Formats: sequence, structure tokens, C-alpha cells
Amino acid sequence: MSRHVYAFDAALPARDPKELLGGKGAGLNAMTELGIPVPPGFTITTDVCLAWRARGDFPEGFATELKLALEGVELRAGRRFGDAADPLLVSVRSGARVSMPGMMDTILNLGLNAETVEGLAATSGDRRFAFDAYRRLVQMYGDVVLGVDHHRFEETLGALKKELGDPRVLDSKLPAEALEELVRRYLAILEGEGKPFPSDVQAQLHGAIGAVFASWDNTRAVRYRKMQGIPHEWGTACTVQAMVFGNLGETSGSGVAFTRNPSTGQRALYGEYLANAQGEDVVAGIKLERHFGDMQDIEFTVEQGRTYILQTRSGKRTAHAAVRIAVELVHEGVLTKEEALGRVDATSLEQLLHARLPTPDELLVRGIRAVATGLPASPGAAVGAIVFDADEAERLASEGRDVLLVRRETSPEDIHGMKAARGIVTATGGMTSHAAVVARGLGKCCVAGCAALNVDYAKQTLTVRTEIGEVRTFQKGDVLSLDGSYGKVYAGPLDVVAAAKVPELEELMRWADETRELRVRANADTPADARRARSFGAEGIGLCRTEHMFFVEERLEAMRCVALAGDEDVRAEWLGKIEPMLREDFAAMLEAMDGLPVTIRLLDWPLHEFLPREPNEHAKVARALGVPVSVVEQRARQMHEINPMLGHRAVRVGLTAPSIYRMMVRAILDAAIDRLEAGGDPRPEIMIPVVGIAGELSRMKQLTFEEAERVFEARGRRVEFKYGTMIELPRACLVAGELAKSAEFFSFGTNDLTQTVFGISRDDAGRFLPVYVDELQLLPVDPFVTIDEDGVGAMIRMACERGVAERADLSLGLCGEHGGDPQSILFAARTGLSYVSCSPPRLPVARLAAAQARTKLRAS
Amino acid sequence: MSRHVYAFDAALPARDPKELLGGKGAGLNAMTELGIPVPPGFTITTDVCLAWRARGDFPEGFATELKLALEGVELRAGRRFGDAADPLLVSVRSGARVSMPGMMDTILNLGLNAETVEGLAATSGDRRFAFDAYRRLVQMYGDVVLGVDHHRFEETLGALKKELGDPRVLDSKLPAEALEELVRRYLAILEGEGKPFPSDVQAQLHGAIGAVFASWDNTRAVRYRKMQGIPHEWGTACTVQAMVFGNLGETSGSGVAFTRNPSTGQRALYGEYLANAQGEDVVAGIKLERHFGDMQDIEFTVEQGRTYILQTRSGKRTAHAAVRIAVELVHEGVLTKEEALGRVDATSLEQLLHARLPTPDELLVRGIRAVATGLPASPGAAVGAIVFDADEAERLASEGRDVLLVRRETSPEDIHGMKAARGIVTATGGMTSHAAVVARGLGKCCVAGCAALNVDYAKQTLTVRTEIGEVRTFQKGDVLSLDGSYGKVYAGPLDVVAAAKVPELEELMRWADETRELRVRANADTPADARRARSFGAEGIGLCRTEHMFFVEERLEAMRCVALAGDEDVRAEWLGKIEPMLREDFAAMLEAMDGLPVTIRLLDWPLHEFLPREPNEHAKVARALGVPVSVVEQRARQMHEINPMLGHRAVRVGLTAPSIYRMMVRAILDAAIDRLEAGGDPRPEIMIPVVGIAGELSRMKQLTFEEAERVFEARGRRVEFKYGTMIELPRACLVAGELAKSAEFFSFGTNDLTQTVFGISRDDAGRFLPVYVDELQLLPVDPFVTIDEDGVGAMIRMACERGVAERADLSLGLCGEHGGDPQSILFAARTGLSYVSCSPPRLPVARLAAAQARTKLRAS
Repeated sequence: MSRHVYAFDAALPARDPKELLGGKGAGLNAMTELGIPVPPGFTITTDVCLAWRARGDFPEGFATELKLALEGVELRAGRRFGDAADPLLVSVRSGARVSMPGMMDTILNLGLNAETVEGLAATSGDRRFAFDAYRRLVQMYGDVVLGVDHHRFEETLGALKKELGDPRVLDSKLPAEALEELVRRYLAILEGEGKPFPSDVQAQLHGAIGAVFASWDNTRAVRYRKMQGIPHEWGTACTVQAMVFGNLGETSGSGVAFTRNPSTGQRALYGEYLANAQGEDVVAGIKLERHFGDMQDIEFTVEQGRTYILQTRSGKRTAHAAVRIAVELVHEGVLTKEEALGRVDATSLEQLLHARLPTPDELLVRGIRAVATGLPASPGAAVGAIVFDADEAERLASEGRDVLLVRRETSPEDIHGMKAARGIVTATGGMTSHAAVVARGLGKCCVAGCAALNVDYAKQTLTVRTEIGEVRTFQKGDVLSLDGSYGKVYAGPLDVVAAAKVPELEELMRWADETRELRVRANADTPADARRARSFGAEGIGLCRTEHMFFVEERLEAMRCVALAGDEDVRAEWLGKIEPMLREDFAAMLEAMDGLPVTIRLLDWPLHEFLPREPNEHAKVARALGVPVSVVEQRARQMHEINPMLGHRAVRVGLTAPSIYRMMVRAILDAAIDRLEAGGDPRPEIMIPVVGIAGELSRMKQLTFEEAERVFEARGRRVEFKYGTMIELPRACLVAGELAKSAEFFSFGTNDLTQTVFGISRDDAGRFLPVYVDELQLLPVDPFVTIDEDGVGAMIRMACERGVAERADLSLGLCGEHGGDPQSILFAARTGLSYVSCSPPRLPVARLAAAQARTKLRAS
Repeated sequence: MSRHVYAFDAALPARDPKELLGGKGAGLNAMTELGIPVPPGFTITTDVCLAWRARGDFPEGFATELKLALEGVELRAGRRFGDAADPLLVSVRSGARVSMPGMMDTILNLGLNAETVEGLAATSGDRRFAFDAYRRLVQMYGDVVLGVDHHRFEETLGALKKELGDPRVLDSKLPAEALEELVRRYLAILEGEGKPFPSDVQAQLHGAIGAVFASWDNTRAVRYRKMQGIPHEWGTACTVQAMVFGNLGETSGSGVAFTRNPSTGQRALYGEYLANAQGEDVVAGIKLERHFGDMQDIEFTVEQGRTYILQTRSGKRTAHAAVRIAVELVHEGVLTKEEALGRVDATSLEQLLHARLPTPDELLVRGIRAVATGLPASPGAAVGAIVFDADEAERLASEGRDVLLVRRETSPEDIHGMKAARGIVTATGGMTSHAAVVARGLGKCCVAGCAALNVDYAKQTLTVRTEIGEVRTFQKGDVLSLDGSYGKVYAGPLDVVAAAKVPELEELMRWADETRELRVRANADTPADARRARSFGAEGIGLCRTEHMFFVEERLEAMRCVALAGDEDVRAEWLGKIEPMLREDFAAMLEAMDGLPVTIRLLDWPLHEFLPREPNEHAKVARALGVPVSVVEQRARQMHEINPMLGHRAVRVGLTAPSIYRMMVRAILDAAIDRLEAGGDPRPEIMIPVVGIAGELSRMKQLTFEEAERVFEARGRRVEFKYGTMIELPRACLVAGELAKSAEFFSFGTNDLTQTVFGISRDDAGRFLPVYVDELQLLPVDPFVTIDEDGVGAMIRMACERGVAERADLSLGLCGEHGGDPQSILFAARTGLSYVSCSPPRLPVARLAAAQARTKLRAS
């Protein structure tokens, strides 16, 4: 039988101390070993919890071990548990392998009863203090161990205050007599419930330990573990520790301290209360940092001038501080570079690059609630006066006003207004709507698809039914605040925290780049994007969404004619007008990424998305095409789709209207040759989207190579390029072996693959997916944020295996939005992909996460 | 080395004669053996073709065998090949294992040259005949063997006719001298091309045989094989046969005959030309039928009073005739029942149950082209005057007029007009649109989603831009004809062939039921459907689409309130109004299927489909719910979906608005108990649609069983039911093992599974899927008609394996529209499913196909 109880100064077996003693117990043991002043105590192992859960009772031999351990504490504290003259009081706390803040129970002040309370009063010289401790024990024990509703105690306290004539008096101002009376009444409540408070201190202790173990299985703890993916089988440890008191007069106190500034990372003790024991704490802090290899968040109590450290743990910190601390701890020799990389939450790095509002939780604490929630379409924050018209946005902005552009949805006619505005809000449209895509391209904050908004252009008002059922109307010029990272709209101006400048980030990124094996590319659709991406460390473009290149007025008009041309010859003519513009853009992108791969996805936009919406635009297109308006209208009607996601798009258009893809192939290769001729090193990769049938890819390959030969002949020189496909349909995964016969690379388009594997449209999931994740917990996370490994991941693994079996040197990448999610990046590394591609602001996230993934995989 | 050449009277090795000699060679061999008068000849094996393809030359020893075989023909024919006095002429024809009509080449009249043509003229006593044969040979040889463009010959003939003074004279009226001149000019063309016509008859023969083998690889043959799934490795045989001539005067002739009437199946020789040799042919016909076990299509030639049979093969026939012939051949002792089942094309049986128009191909021959093509939404045919309004349709129909209802799309307000009309046409909407579903339910013919139609309600006109670019406008009252089986709209009235009454069908179906193992259920949504299905032999309902039960005005209104209720309490109230109606319907369906399983799929309709479209209906709902119209409008707007196929539907609604599924579970189980109490044997199965996450199914199971217990308690008795799920998402296949923990059955919803595996919306596929199948041949068949085995089929197999591994007695079925497709039924049988479910008119198809599948699987 293994040991059940470990004193803080006991030698531990060769096993992860946290696994055996929980985080808290392990920390106390370590601190004791380091000679840090810790009140004496011991920890009951997680195994005891598991035994207790299985049998409903403590294991054999436990009582004896507990008794011996308690005697050890008595010895070190110089007091005895239950001693009527000078009683030892103890706390009993839970502590699992990982922190589950507030989820389980704690009981303080055990060891008090009618006799010992008098002893405490005598030794402390403070009767009020002693009865205050006693009434707290009775209430806590009644609630936690005996299961009596805590409202009963609160009501009793309220009634007593009333009787004393001041219902609003503070607890700390109640005199000792009142507290004595309160204890009497509390004890009576428990008697009345048939659950008397045990005056036997040993019974108190056993009851409290059992209650702590039981709290592992309370509803909120179970739910929390499910959410966090913590196994129910771990169990909690239970720590029993001598009480020290920070409320024994002027020379006592309690507080928390951080060993560094949790906001900036600056190396200096930072705490809420430091009394007069500072020097000692600083020394302790350094010792603890060195031991745990991290900035510590320390709880301490000063009891009559003597400082005790009650708990130490890694401190929470801002992203800014996390980066600085990790880098400095390496410089101080505390951490290796690899360890430092593991200490920064990769996701948090994105915050550093954008202005932001306080988080919704932080605002809620301040009583500020969003008036509406939409999709977090483009990160960042913006505050400004609302306007409903792009021209007006431009005009007001030119006068120096901060404006937000509010539209039901945006279209290319709105782009000048979007550029002028600080942020954009739309009532409809998803993460890939015009507003979302353009805003991300412009680096503007955007909340899209905010369905609760009722935009009235005529009245120039915005009406919202808020989440709490209130109806609010905003006029043109009213100020709102947007949080594009959380998809929130707030009334009135909020403080915007500017993007941080963290000098240490560059060093951390350098280490990440040295460590990782997974390459990191960027999703970039314009030359400006490409340049920005390279400056953020992109090793190529993994996805250039060419459809986004048409979000410009003049191109859009020509593309409308392309869509509505009616036949290939007319279409080719209009494509001819676009070709030189595209060629120029491609050349600029290849220049920005000189020497690095640039994967260009041929058009993937349902033709009907190019269609004009307003009647006068039908007429414009009809004039341009030289056909009656009615013909244009009918063609447009015929192109309407019920499920555009599953419609006539991408390669399906490429094959049925081949002049479009032919033009794009020409523009890409001409651009590449332009770069060659300018002495550059262009590395274009042509990617065919939405392939599900092997023949689609082979037929399109034939067409691509035909067009390539034509270009090479016309230019009198050749340029190397790769041909591959985006894997974004389940069927593509199934026939990946066939696809690999034509493709030199696969790039997993995990957005669409998630949509088709789940049969869930991301744009339409708002009414059930959050309920699935948050409320019903049918999914651990949003599969559009983190790859669903059981479903989507299984398809990806299948596609990789089948593809590589056919073509050993097949290049494998991932270019969905998951490419910027650390958990998904770990999946990509584990699956053997060679790169991920993400949006430029996510590049630091991806680089760090890739390094962390490498370390994790090496360890496993 | 195996033999290369087989005379028609040679004994064959123990190998499938068709594999060795092709269908034609095998038929001639068999006829010769049966003593049927066949002109002598021999067949060169498919192996020689393969050798020829591989080496570009004939195999060793072939020339010798050919010479010997030719001598045998000479002996039997009493003439010698190349004999100047009395020449033997031969034909050289291709013939593969299966018929590839018109795809490969044939050369006739080989053996003619400048000398032998004179001998033929002398022995036939007809110089014109001899030179006509010669000029045909030179042209055919020039074209097929020497590769000279046939236009050259046609131009020369045209020029000659002009010179003779009558450019329009018929070939058969050209005098011998003209034909002699023509031969000279033809020979000169070939000389001029450097490809002289060989006067050596042996060289002619070798050249012709090589050309026949080469024609196996011509473009149209390769394409045809690809379409039909015929392996390129089969090769063709080549038959060399003595020519007989039907053009030698009054006592000669050629023709074709069927051994039974190919239209009705009546047992009587039926041919286009019978001369005076009838008795002999009848005897030959019977002999051939007995040998081949099938009605034969015979080609014969009468040469100067003597009849030769040139070819025999199984004759094409109508579905009606096929059924009758198959059954009668069993009665005549020619076929076993199992063989007879294999002789009827299962798909063709559906024709028997519906009125129909001539097929589009038949009409094209008559110069009749559809004015528009839409989706074949509900089979059958209809002719009538067009009207644009349901009320008017009803009024005119009550006056005895045949009308067609033409709408942009239909809604429940149109149902009375749909009932009154002969057929329905819509401009928008897919196979599951309101029009399609209701028309199928009513058994009315319907063409849906006919995008080329421009319906103008104001002008009461229908304008169409036809496939050949013509614009046609039809006024109210104009007559159109509809083909709901092919999705065609024709101008004017066409002849409708009524549904056939085939007494033999019942017997054939009985045999099918005895043979098959796969059970056949029906998709039925109403009590009337259920009764009809049982009369067609359904062994249960495999799919009751409950959403179709709401296509009734009064229910629809309540469902609108359900959709727009805003909260669960209000929703439950409106559901309460619907519950008794549903319960009654379920009871009637369980009664119709007493003792058989009835699988009821809980609601699978996007809530927004229930939404009102007209403003006055918003007001109606607002009144009913007691909220302002603006609230209803806003709720409706929020429910709009971009991709409804991937949206908030089915179990997703079931979980987020649980009162709906709870109501349905109650209605089903109350109905079942009603049936129990009435002495029935109800076997309800509750099926959850669109499940992709294991938790969806387990959570819904909990809710279902909770509700069941409530019903059982209230009623004081229990009823057995099964709980299962529809597998229609890729992810469901991947997590099938998890799903099988909750599900007692899986039913594959292959429509949606095909949509999600391919990422193709069936409703939107019209602009590319037909191009993929017909033009680009990227897919062998439409995957919405026949299961795509590589993709969708692979997912189904995976789901079956994983499901059964978890639950050995898991019941497996298939209920997409593929359930009525023979090839998909074979797949289902091979995969080990226990049933398929199809629409009632497809039941005979499915029963026969299931029997055929059983036979095929036993053979393999």
C-alpha cells in the first residue's frame, strides 16, 4: 500500500508531484524544501480521493497516517489541535493537478469549538477575532460539509444587524458579543436541520476532508473539466495546513504579490499589500521563480510581524508581460529557450498587434454589456460616430471625425467609405462576406452579420433589440464602440488600448523560428498584404484568394460582364480587360515574396456573387454587353443559387467557362516571367479549388499546361511553377490518391472542409453552433476555430496517407483559418504537414505555436 | 499457342464464346451449329486484336490459319476468293463482347478488282450490280483502311452526276457505265493520294482485318467504352463471311425480323420484310429463341430465293414486351425464373406505371425539340392549357378543361390549383421544392426549376429562350406538353401513351420477391401514400418525411407561429394545435403498414422555409402571436439563411427548440398506442435526421425516452419502438461507431450524403453537373441517380463497418432516391444493407433490382 499523506517537508516518491499532491500541495512541498516560510501542513494524495470516490470512505491505514501527520504539524506549530488553552487551527483545501479556480471547496478555521474559541480569544488577546473565526467556520462547515443552504446564515446575520439597529453595518464593525450571539444562532440552525456542528475537532477534520473530495464531483467542477478537457479520473488532493492570521491587528495582514509586473513584465515585486516584510519577500520571490522557472503569483499572510507564504503559482499576465518575462528568464539563465517558448500562450500574441477594448468579461464586471453581438469579422477596436453611407463616411473622415460605417451589407461601391471609417458593422453576411474580407484586407476592425441590428437607411437609424430584450435606437452621429476581435458592439465611447510595442517579441520569434519545423506562410490577396506578411515573417504565400482581387470597382464591373456574358467569346473579351491588372498585381506579390512560394488559388467565387443588385447596374451591364436589360435580368435570375456554398463555383466555373481560368493562368505566368526578366526569383504555385473528382483536376491540368506553353512560346522563355489543389471536400480526401496523380501539392482548405464534413454552413451556424459548444457541450470547441480531429482531422489524415502513397514527394499544407490556431497547428505538425498558412496578423501566433508543437511532439 | 481463327462450324474451347469471338461471332457459330442457314465464314479471335494492338502486326501463325479458314469458306460457298470467273466476295466486320453499335468499322464486298468484277458481272448477269459493289468497296476501303476523307468520294460522285446532266439522280438509277467511270475516278483519287487500292485480294483482306482491329481504338469507340464502362482491354473480334446479296433482282431482298412483337411481347414473328420464305424463318426463330433463351432480332438476306440469316441478337423491346416475354419464356420452359428476372431492365418498369410522352430522342427524330428543360420533379406526362393562377386552374378544370399550372414557384396556397391541374411547371426550386414534393405526393407530373422560363404574372405570359436560342412567348390558354420523367416542356399537344396494364408483371414480381434477400420499403409521407405503397409491395415505410405533412394550409399556419414564436412556451402552445392532426395521420400510416416497420423521420425542414413570404401573412402571424408585425418581420429576417442545406435544420432545431421533437415523439407514440388499443400491430421507428455529432444523438435519445415514458405513464401502457438515425453527413460516417451506441438502426440518406460528400447542392447543380456527365465525362453517371461508389459508397461502407463493430445487430437501410436505382440497389446488397426504401412508383423497380442483385452476388 502506498503512502496516503505527505508532510510538506517529506521526501516525495519519483513521480510527478502535481499528479500525487495536486498543484497546491506540490507547490507547498517545494516551498518548504526551498526554506521559504510556509505554515506547516501536509497533503493527502489524489489516490485517497479516488479511493474515497470508489468506496465512499477513506482507505485502510489512512486514519493513522492522518493522525501522525497532524502531530507533525502540532510539533512544528507549537500548538495542539483541539487544545482548549492554545488551539491549533487548520485549513482544508482542494488542489488538483491543474488549477480549477473556484470550482471546488475549502474550509478554514477548523479546530474551533465552544472551548477552544475561548483559548484562541485568550492567546490572541482578541475576543472579537476569535468569535469572528468561529462564526465563519460554523457557516462554512454548515454550507460545505453539512449541505445547509448558505442563505440561511446570511438571513440570520441580516436579522441580527436589524435587531442591533443598523441593518447596513459592516461585518467587521460587529462587536464580539454580536458575533457570539451569531455563533449561537448558527449552531441552532444546524441543530434545527438535524445536522449538528461537531464539537469534536477530529470529526471536523474528517468531515472537511470528505467534503473536499466530494467537491471534485460537484456539478460546476464536472462541467468545468468537460470544458477544459480535464479527465474525471484525476481526482483532487487535499491539503491540511496550520492557519495563520492576517487579521490580528496592525502588524498583521494578507495579500498577493507577483514576482514581476503582470502587466508589463517588468522585473520588480508587484503586489497589493506588502506590509514591512518586503526584503524577505523579494528573496523568496527570486527563489520561487528560479525553482518554478516562471513568474510567481504568491499569496502571503503576515501574522503579527511574521510573514508566511501560503501559496505560490505561476502568475497570470498579459501577453505583453508574458513575452518579456519569458525572454528575460532565458537571459537570467532560469529557462532554456525551448522552455521560454512554451511559457507564452501563442494565441495571446494576436492581441499585441491590434488596438483593443477591454474584454467582454472585463466590461461586464464594470456593468457594461454589448448592445449586439455579431461575427468577429476583422480584429481590433474602433470608436466613432455612426454613418449609414459610404460618401458621408468619407466626407466626415476628411473633416477629421472618427466614424463607423453601418450597412445592412457592403458592396464594392462602399469601399471608399470603408477605407475612411475606423470600423465597419453589417447586419448580414458571414466571415467571408464582402465587408469581412475587405475589412481584413484594409486592417479595419469589423463586426459582420450582426442580425439583431435593424438598419433603416431612410430614417438614418439603427435599432437594436439587445440581448436583455431592451430596444435601443441610435441616430446618425451617435457614438458606438466596436470590438472586432469578439464581435461586439457597445453603446457610447469605450477606452481603446493601443497595440503594444514589445521589443522582446522579435527575439522570441527568432527562437521560435530556430525551433520549429513546420513552415508558416500567409494568406494574402494583394501586394500590400504580401509585403506586410513578409515583414511578419511569412515564408511564402499559402493562399492568395484571387476573388478578393476583384473587390475593386473597375474590375468588378468587368467581372459582372464576364459573369453575364452569355458565351465564351464575349466573356474572353471582358477577361482581356482584367488580365493586365491581375498580371501587375501578381508580379508585385511575387516580388514581395521573391524566392518564396506564392500559392495562387484560381477564382473561387460563385459567379452570381458578381451580379449587380441594383436595377441601374443591370442597365449598365446591359449597355456594356450590348444586350437588352431583360436579357441581363434573366441571366442574373438564372444564376441565383439556393446553396451557393455547394453551387456553381471554383473549378466548376473553371471547367464550364474555361476562358476565366485560362486568363488567370496567363496572368500568373506572364507576371512570373516579368519577374524573371527583372532578375527576380518568382515561385508561383497554381492551386485549383473545390475539386472533388479526379477528372476535374486532370482536365484542368491539361488546360493549364496548354495555356502555359502558349505563354512560354509567346515570351520565348519558360518559368517553373507548381500545380496542385485545395482539399476542401470530403470526396477529395477519399480520392486523394487519384488527385495526387495530377497534383504536386495539396493544401487543406479547412474552412470549407469543416463545412462539408459537418454539413454546417459557417455563415448560418450562429443560431445553433454556440448553443452546441457553450450550452449543450456537444462539441468541446467551435470546429471553425480549432480543427475537429475526430471528423475533419480524420479526413485530412486519410487524404495525406492516400496522396503520399501515390506521390511520395507530395507537398502538404493547410490554409484554412485554422492555420492560425495553436491547437490546429499542433494537429498539422502531428499529421506531418509541411506548412500552415494564416492571415498576416496571426503569423506570430503560428510561428510560436509551430515551435511549441515541435517541442510537444519531441516529448511524446 | 492458342488458335486464332474459328470457322462458324468449328467446335469452341471451354470459354465464354462471346469473350473469344465477340457477340457477332458467337451468334454465327451458334446459328451454324443449330443448322440455321448462315453464309459460311469464320471469326478471328479477340486475342488476335490484342496482339495486333500490342505489336502493330498479326501474331505468328495467323496468316496460315487465315488461309486455311478462307479455303474452308471457299469450299462451302463453292466459289474461290479472287477467282476471275466466279469470285467469292467476303465482308469483314468487327464484333466485341458487348454490342457497340456503329462505333467500329465494317468493310463489304472484299475480293473485287478489275478482273473479278467482270466475273461477278457475268455470273450475276447484272453488270450494274457488279460495278455498284465494286465502287462501294473502293470507297469504303479508301475511307476506312487507307484513311482518305470520304468527302472526296462524295464530291466526285456529285460531279459525275452533274456531268451526266442530273445532279439529283438517285445512286440506284445510275447506269453501269456511270458506275464504271466512278470506279475509275475513285481509283485515281487513291492513286493521287499515294495510297493505291490493292488489286491483290489477299492484300485487301489483310488490310481490312487490320482496319477493323484499329477501329477498336478510334475516338468514338474509346469514348463510348468510357461512358458504358467497357474495358479497353477486351478488344474486338473480327468476322469474315461470304457475301450474299439481297439486291439481285425480284427474288432477292434483305430485312430484319423479331421473333416476338417488340412492342407488346406477343408471340408471333414480326418483321419489316419477309419475302416468300416465311415458314422457314419462323422455325429458325424458334430454334434461335430456345438457344439464346431470349426474343431475337434477326438480320437476314434472301439471295435469289434462298434465305440466309446474317446475324441474330437479343431484340430491343418495350418494358411491356420485356415483362411479357420474360414470363412467357419461363412458361415455355426456355428460361428459369431467375434467368427471366435478369432479362427485364428494372428501371424500365417505372414507365409502366405512368402515362408518358415519346422519349426526347424519339421526338427529336420527328423534329420535335423541347422548348425548355427543367428537373424531372415528378414522373408522368400531361398536356393542357397553361394558367398562371391556382384559382383559375381550379375553375377551368371544373369546366372540364385540361390545364397546366405554371408558377415561378408554388406555395401551400397553390395546392388546390395543383390538385386541379394535369401537371405543374415551375421556374425555380429543386427536386425537394414545394412543387416537386407536393406533385409527387399527388401523383401529378411536374417539371420544376425550369430556369429558362420567364413567368410574367401581370401579362399572363410565359417567355422562353429555347436551347437553340429562339425566344418564344406563350399566352394564357396556349397548350403545352410536359414530360415529368425527363423534365421537358414542349410547345403544343403531344400524344400521351397511357400507363400500360401488364398482367404478367404480377407474376414476375412474385418471382422477384421469392428471389431477393434485400427488403424493399417505401418513402411515404401520408396515409394515402402508405396505402398505395403497400399495394405496390412495400415491406414497410423506410422514410416518412414529416415536414411534408405540414404542406397543408391549416397546419402550415400553425407551423409559422411555431417558427416565429420567439420562445419555447409560446411555441409549445402552437405545437399543441398540430399534435392531434399528426397523431391521427401517424395512426393511419401505422394502420396501413400494420405489422411492418414505419420509420418516421422527425422534422427536417429549415425553420425559415415555414416563413410567410407575403406582407399580409406577416400580419396574420403577428396577430396570431399577439406581437407587432415589426417583431415578426425582424424574426423572419434573422432566420434567413445563406445556405439552408447546411443551416439550422433537423436535429439542430430539435435540440435548440426541443418542444418540436417532443411533440412529434408524443404524437408518434400516442398514435402507436391508439393502434395497439385497436388491436393492431404498430411498429414505429423514430429516426433523427442530419446528425453529425454523437452527442446530438445521445442527447436527443434522452429527450425521446423521457417523452416516451411520459406518454406511457399517461396512457397506462407501453409500446415498442426503435430509435435510430439517418446517416447523411460525412462526419456521421466517421463517428458511426459512436452513433451506434445510441442508434438501433442507421438509414443512409444518400441524397444529402451525396450533396455533402461532393459539396454539390442538387438544386444548384444544373449549370455544371450535366456538363460533367455528358460533355466532359468527368463522372460516369449523375451521382444523384446512381450511388458514387468511390466517394459516397466508400463513406457508407465505412459507416457500416464502424457501426456494426459497435453494435452487431445494428439495422442498416438506405432511403435516399438511390433506393429506386438498380445499380445503387446492387451496391446496397453488396454492402450488406438489409433494406432500401424508395418512392412508391419505384417499388416494382426496386423489387426486381433487388432480385437481380441477389443473383449477381451469388454468381460472383
